[in-house]
Amino acid sequence: MSGANFADRLAEAIDRRRTPAVVGLDPLLESLPAELAPAEPTARAAAAALERFCGDVIDIVSPLVPAVKINSGFFEAYFEHGVAAFFRLVRRARSAGLLVIADIKRGDIGSTASLYCRGHLESPRLADVSDEQMPDAVTLAGYLGAGAVKPFLEAARRTGRGMYILVRPSDPGADEVHEFRGGVESGRPFYRHIAELVSRWGQGDGLMGSRGLSCVGAVVAPKDAASTMELRAAMPHTPWLVPGYGAQGASSAACRPCFLPGGRAALVNASRSVIFAFRDPRWQARCGDDWRAAIGHAAMDFARDIAAASQA
Amino acid sequence: MSGANFADRLAEAIDRRRTPAVVGLDPLLESLPAELAPAEPTARAAAAALERFCGDVIDIVSPLVPAVKINSGFFEAYFEHGVAAFFRLVRRARSAGLLVIADIKRGDIGSTASLYCRGHLESPRLADVSDEQMPDAVTLAGYLGAGAVKPFLEAARRTGRGMYILVRPSDPGADEVHEFRGGVESGRPFYRHIAELVSRWGQGDGLMGSRGLSCVGAVVAPKDAASTMELRAAMPHTPWLVPGYGAQGASSAACRPCFLPGGRAALVNASRSVIFAFRDPRWQARCGDDWRAAIGHAAMDFARDIAAASQA
Repeated sequence: MSGANFADRLAEAIDRRRTPAVVGLDPLLESLPAELAPAEPTARAAAAALERFCGDVIDIVSPLVPAVKINSGFFEAYFEHGVAAFFRLVRRARSAGLLVIADIKRGDIGSTASLYCRGHLESPRLADVSDEQMPDAVTLAGYLGAGAVKPFLEAARRTGRGMYILVRPSDPGADEVHEFRGGVESGRPFYRHIAELVSRWGQGDGLMGSRGLSCVGAVVAPKDAASTMELRAAMPHTPWLVPGYGAQGASSAACRPCFLPGGRAALVNASRSVIFAFRDPRWQARCGDDWRAAIGHAAMDFARDIAAASQA
Repeated sequence: MSGANFADRLAEAIDRRRTPAVVGLDPLLESLPAELAPAEPTARAAAAALERFCGDVIDIVSPLVPAVKINSGFFEAYFEHGVAAFFRLVRRARSAGLLVIADIKRGDIGSTASLYCRGHLESPRLADVSDEQMPDAVTLAGYLGAGAVKPFLEAARRTGRGMYILVRPSDPGADEVHEFRGGVESGRPFYRHIAELVSRWGQGDGLMGSRGLSCVGAVVAPKDAASTMELRAAMPHTPWLVPGYGAQGASSAACRPCFLPGGRAALVNASRSVIFAFRDPRWQARCGDDWRAAIGHAAMDFARDIAAASQA
């Protein structure tokens, strides 16, 4: 694949669907609809069940949102069977017209990062690996500095793919790392430092799209409005992937400061609140036992809520 | 599996082999012996070639060292085929009497971390997954705080397995993250902060072994002796996994301050300098085309060098 910058492709997809909402596929086996429970207690059967469920979710949400985020951890729990299912789902989502973000959060030194890049963003030519099974973007940890990111930057430049680098996670427990200020009260927090690195990496040659945004994005959870606005101002060219909405507790109002004027430069993710909507009494009351309908209604509601927040 | 604390099992294995050296399996396809080159350009054939090569390396080094570290990134480059090969190699190494560290460097929020733990340290009962394919320990990034580590701590407590959490990486480019001091010259560096978190996590209930060491270790690259000694003093109960020796440039002398008195509490890793020794003129001169002999000699040399450093 080669083509337009990922930031441009994403902006077009958002324009088409009129919402910057992304559905996260975090399929917990224990929470699947009863009819999809695996017939036997094997990794192979579990992976097949996840694949069936996520395939249906993809069909349901593909007319409603521009992108899905598929969480690798939920598939790796089933070893090679889960990994094979993961890449078949990437392919299926892309052929349904969705952009696909592979949520892998990898981060290792340069020599190893090159190999992670081969397996997750740009595979060298292999007869049994299709370009269609490779995602449009990945999530990364910028924890090991520029060397760990470089292979992905090079692949993004060549292929029109992109990445979101972790800057501010949604887990409150992560604050003990990300609020670190050098042990000095007046110090800058660690997440601000990472934000500046990510912003700088994204302004390298050949990484900026035509709409003023880079293909190097950041994962930024909304916390208090003041610190979110400060981070937003520090990263004017960085598209954000925003976790924390829905089951994790953030409202669309909390997501508002994540957007640049015109509702640009942020994609808000919801996972459990959409894909497991059929377990929520609110949607059960409306959809009864029809789990597909519950997912569809929840996805539509989510897409509208985020569209409104982005334009507020 | 349940049994003794990982730190105790490792100490016994080191006593048996009389060296705290671990061989890293980072098998780059392009560097394999010519006779093992894959017959066709497929991910399946590439994974099979890596598996054959690493299987031989395991047989060669298993009498010489207590443990191997298998780098997941090099296998993930070949998708489900690589992942399947990875877990077969874990099993093979364990049945050859080696302890196995799966180098996965995962780090994500708690809900996702639980799934990574299922896929990499303790699988729930699945009929087609053997306990024998699960490693003795994993490497993790502590980048998301305690929540990201908790599922692994719980699994370690239950199973006698362990982990090494990244504290100070070997890549010089990582300094732009790990030397962060809050933007204040007098601030404490970020890696010291992570070191304290890791040390604290490792002292939780049921995690300390009988020899005063925890099953929660740290990945610490040797840099200048002064800062290494300071880190060592800050983590008196934490076993270290030390990267950077050999191809990455650190000498055994640089590794010395990583050990506690009596040569305890550090495992030094060499990857390329051992497994690709047959590409090194020094070993070629001695072993000719016999790549297995070159690996064996390099592993023996490495094991002796580290044994001496640990006792110096």
